[in-house]
Amino acid sequence: MPPPPPVIARTKSATMSGPVVNSATRVGTLVVQAPHEKGIVSSVSQLLSRQGATVLDSAHFSDAPTQTFFQRLQFDLTGLNDRVTLERSLRETGERFNMRWRVWYGDRKKRVAVFASKQEHCLYDLLIRHRAKELDCEISMVISNHPDASPIARHFGVPFHFLPVTPETKAKQEDAAAELIDRAGVDLIVLARYMQILSPGFVARYPHRIINVHHSFLPAFIGANPYRQAHQRGVKMIGATSHYVTSQLDEGPIIEQATVRCAHRDTVEDLVRKGRELEKNVLAAAVRWHLDDRVMAYANKTVVFD
Amino acid sequence: MPPPPPVIARTKSATMSGPVVNSATRVGTLVVQAPHEKGIVSSVSQLLSRQGATVLDSAHFSDAPTQTFFQRLQFDLTGLNDRVTLERSLRETGERFNMRWRVWYGDRKKRVAVFASKQEHCLYDLLIRHRAKELDCEISMVISNHPDASPIARHFGVPFHFLPVTPETKAKQEDAAAELIDRAGVDLIVLARYMQILSPGFVARYPHRIINVHHSFLPAFIGANPYRQAHQRGVKMIGATSHYVTSQLDEGPIIEQATVRCAHRDTVEDLVRKGRELEKNVLAAAVRWHLDDRVMAYANKTVVFD
Amino acid sequence: MPPPPPVIARTKSATMSGPVVNSATRVGTLVVQAPHEKGIVSSVSQLLSRQGATVLDSAHFSDAPTQTFFQRLQFDLTGLNDRVTLERSLRETGERFNMRWRVWYGDRKKRVAVFASKQEHCLYDLLIRHRAKELDCEISMVISNHPDASPIARHFGVPFHFLPVTPETKAKQEDAAAELIDRAGVDLIVLARYMQILSPGFVARYPHRIINVHHSFLPAFIGANPYRQAHQRGVKMIGATSHYVTSQLDEGPIIEQATVRCAHRDTVEDLVRKGRELEKNVLAAAVRWHLDDRVMAYANKTVVFD
Amino acid sequence: MPPPPPVIARTKSATMSGPVVNSATRVGTLVVQAPHEKGIVSSVSQLLSRQGATVLDSAHFSDAPTQTFFQRLQFDLTGLNDRVTLERSLRETGERFNMRWRVWYGDRKKRVAVFASKQEHCLYDLLIRHRAKELDCEISMVISNHPDASPIARHFGVPFHFLPVTPETKAKQEDAAAELIDRAGVDLIVLARYMQILSPGFVARYPHRIINVHHSFLPAFIGANPYRQAHQRGVKMIGATSHYVTSQLDEGPIIEQATVRCAHRDTVEDLVRKGRELEKNVLAAAVRWHLDDRVMAYANKTVVFD
Repeated sequence: MPPPPPVIARTKSATMSGPVVNSATRVGTLVVQAPHEKGIVSSVSQLLSRQGATVLDSAHFSDAPTQTFFQRLQFDLTGLNDRVTLERSLRETGERFNMRWRVWYGDRKKRVAVFASKQEHCLYDLLIRHRAKELDCEISMVISNHPDASPIARHFGVPFHFLPVTPETKAKQEDAAAELIDRAGVDLIVLARYMQILSPGFVARYPHRIINVHHSFLPAFIGANPYRQAHQRGVKMIGATSHYVTSQLDEGPIIEQATVRCAHRDTVEDLVRKGRELEKNVLAAAVRWHLDDRVMAYANKTVVFD
Repeated sequence: MPPPPPVIARTKSATMSGPVVNSATRVGTLVVQAPHEKGIVSSVSQLLSRQGATVLDSAHFSDAPTQTFFQRLQFDLTGLNDRVTLERSLRETGERFNMRWRVWYGDRKKRVAVFASKQEHCLYDLLIRHRAKELDCEISMVISNHPDASPIARHFGVPFHFLPVTPETKAKQEDAAAELIDRAGVDLIVLARYMQILSPGFVARYPHRIINVHHSFLPAFIGANPYRQAHQRGVKMIGATSHYVTSQLDEGPIIEQATVRCAHRDTVEDLVRKGRELEKNVLAAAVRWHLDDRVMAYANKTVVFD
Repeated sequence: MPPPPPVIARTKSATMSGPVVNSATRVGTLVVQAPHEKGIVSSVSQLLSRQGATVLDSAHFSDAPTQTFFQRLQFDLTGLNDRVTLERSLRETGERFNMRWRVWYGDRKKRVAVFASKQEHCLYDLLIRHRAKELDCEISMVISNHPDASPIARHFGVPFHFLPVTPETKAKQEDAAAELIDRAGVDLIVLARYMQILSPGFVARYPHRIINVHHSFLPAFIGANPYRQAHQRGVKMIGATSHYVTSQLDEGPIIEQATVRCAHRDTVEDLVRKGRELEKNVLAAAVRWHLDDRVMAYANKTVVFD
Repeated sequence: MPPPPPVIARTKSATMSGPVVNSATRVGTLVVQAPHEKGIVSSVSQLLSRQGATVLDSAHFSDAPTQTFFQRLQFDLTGLNDRVTLERSLRETGERFNMRWRVWYGDRKKRVAVFASKQEHCLYDLLIRHRAKELDCEISMVISNHPDASPIARHFGVPFHFLPVTPETKAKQEDAAAELIDRAGVDLIVLARYMQILSPGFVARYPHRIINVHHSFLPAFIGANPYRQAHQRGVKMIGATSHYVTSQLDEGPIIEQATVRCAHRDTVEDLVRKGRELEKNVLAAAVRWHLDDRVMAYANKTVVFD
């Protein structure tokens, strides 16, 4: 987990010492993951204190089976002496405890690229939520292998890139996407029902920085046409899953899931319709939590701090 | 579907012609399943009318992919001329339309045998609901391969049969169970977290008359230790499924499913605890609907009339 | 219930006699409500038959406390002799049984006017669902007391009318709205978080033809600022409700409700955000069911046929 | 909040410094509530450290509107020097910060008295969960104003006290109950569908130590017959609520709520049946959380630590 730039923080529960702070722009967030060992908590706490970073909020979790410790700290950027020194100290402490960490400074918003295809419900949903200030980020661009989303992006004032793809041009298309993404300093890629499978090479460039939505309650109905599979099996509930993308299709760490009842009366089309609501919600939740640095991946699972 | 004796009917929505009737004991229920064909509805309707059976309620469903027609009719037993004649007419009409049917007369309660092992939550739940009059049946017996459930059965005044089983004695144990069941005229077998796999031979004796609860959201986590599997996969919801038992383990027609949220904090034990609530509820719902002749199995799925 | 023109019918379960039909445009829907009396079902059925209207699907419900009978029938328009004669027969039968009824012919789509104010999530949601063919209607216009929704309506190609309102101009504004609505032959008015209270006179013009969404789990938190009320009371779930508008504010027949968990951590703003998802979903469901002629109001409640 | 004796702790997430501990009996729990002020966290932390109490887990929450700080700490009892000294230090620090606190030592189980009337589902549920080790407590007694629950208590080996009540004997009955409760050192009173209203005097003896279940989604349908009220209003979901009892009937701090769908088909009896599942679940959750010292009441609301 190389320290990608910096963070957010809707500090509604900012606390501990000092008045409750509200502006996300003055808040830093540090997330930490390490093998369980005595002294980590106090070391990190002292480290922040030495740098003038008053802790506003802290949450931790310890996974017993893997003896792994997770912590998320929010601190006041106002008093912070120097970011370079802070990060050097974190590097040192990190090495000592075999600790992975990343820090984000709230005065920079995370940048998001949304990938879409022909289905537009998740794309619309993200753009509308962004406009309603539910997602604390910049939407830097929409990339699609179809031109259909262009007017949608334009309606919301977001740059649109049409990158068609065929089996032959796939590598080139991904290179073009990566260049757009890297040039814009994109922090998170969101696959909003993007119907292309990304190559392992592309996925490896953005570890735990690509979020996908799968239209089933994983691990049920992996693969194509999950709603058709669900209809055929005669299930009484369907689901949707948002997850980080890894090289194993539909196998990445799950971030959020939701389900809804269905019945014998429901046709495949009904399931598709009902599923859209789930897809939108689980994808938006995953994106929001990622933007707030609430999600930590480990052992092909996630910790999601409330 | 040979016409097993007869059933129930909480006729809260009894209607159509005549005052709303309330006593389940005076209600007959006819369920019908046939290839879609013109004339079935009116034939069945006239057949009942000719026998003096006033229709109180009717619901139907047509499955487009398989062009199959399903109907559930409730009729007043008071005016019915003669059950033998009614059933002979049904047999004739059934042959004409290649129709499967069964009829139940509400003046006889269905008889249920509950199979249990060491886990007692589903057993307790069924017995308590029965006592609260949620399940319109007789609980004829509890059969278990462990003696633990004996005091529970006794507390509720239900006969208990301890039938231990080992790989060597399995065939004999099942024969003993079948004899008890058949002698008592049991209509429905409920596996309340019974931890033995029934042999194909036993299952074949009671087609669509054995209901099981599986402690996962099928088809996810088939097989052993589904909560452990769910924990390992890091899902954000767990589920439970009630289904008819077929010779394919965990593959029978699903009757009901339910899910509940979980989080990274939940240990396997927490999932087991949360799952118990789901298991109880989906099993009880399936049993109640079966007792009310609301469930019809086809194509390894179920139609469940509201 | 004067027979407003005609419609709909996603006949997925079209059945009874004849092959399963799929095109909504060839389907008529008749809904009926009457005091419970012998002979209604067969009279209505014969009436349709005499007019050459083959019944495709039928559902009914009988409310025991009020002894009221409800039926929804779908029939094939192809063989229907003559709509004028059909409706005359219905009028006659209706008088005989003191029966309220309405019929809709699927070859005309219902027309909808959406009222919005500054909040745009429900408006967007309806327009997106309409484009995804989830709502079988024409969106004839968007009316708003604020200009903000204008670009949204334009993006979806829907006429927009800006009708600002002040206490002094309210009567005039409603008159203007009514004229637009009546001239366009609008069948349903949807209040998509419209923040003005309609006058009793306006409401009376469109009985059971105005659907509103209230941002609480009615009857809890009637009135202003329900999310703030919910936060203050410390509830652990919030909800949203869609209902027909009557002259009693927040007291009309409920069509759909949904809830979601919340916690002490949630600020009022969090509740507002979580509530938006509920509001969109319950409003869209109510609109869809109304368009499909599945909703029947009585005794300040609704019957909603599956 | 006078420091009632001491607490539990299923330390699945025990952490911070030292290996993950599992035995609840060696864990102490300190809960703290104070006006937001700099220095509280470090003072409490140092206080525990000075007494040899290694912190295993910590969670906090700050309520912005009321500027109130909440913390729940779990610590290892093994190294604790002396409980008397610890509590004296807590009293001193408590006074300095105007802090309310309580501490519980896991080597003593909390004692619970269950009050029941004729309805038995919640009583059974608590006793079964207790036997399944879901509730870490002793069930010291069942008190009822009806004799019906006697065989149930006996089946589970719990002492039963039959205390009938009439308007004339109410004061005496409550005195008798209080004496039984106090003599047994009961820590928590659970009203498992107890159908008597406790007098303000009785309630005042056990502040935030009496948990009730109300069979509606409070604040909807306060008072008698909530299922009948819900049926009459035509809601599409019903709910249940567990809460601390205060002198204001149905107005105490809410601990947990749950809802389930209903439909026009559901009679009042159906709502009662569906509601039972909700009642059992919300009551059991509240009891479990209280036993784990996860619930803190303030401003007529609750903080419930995960």
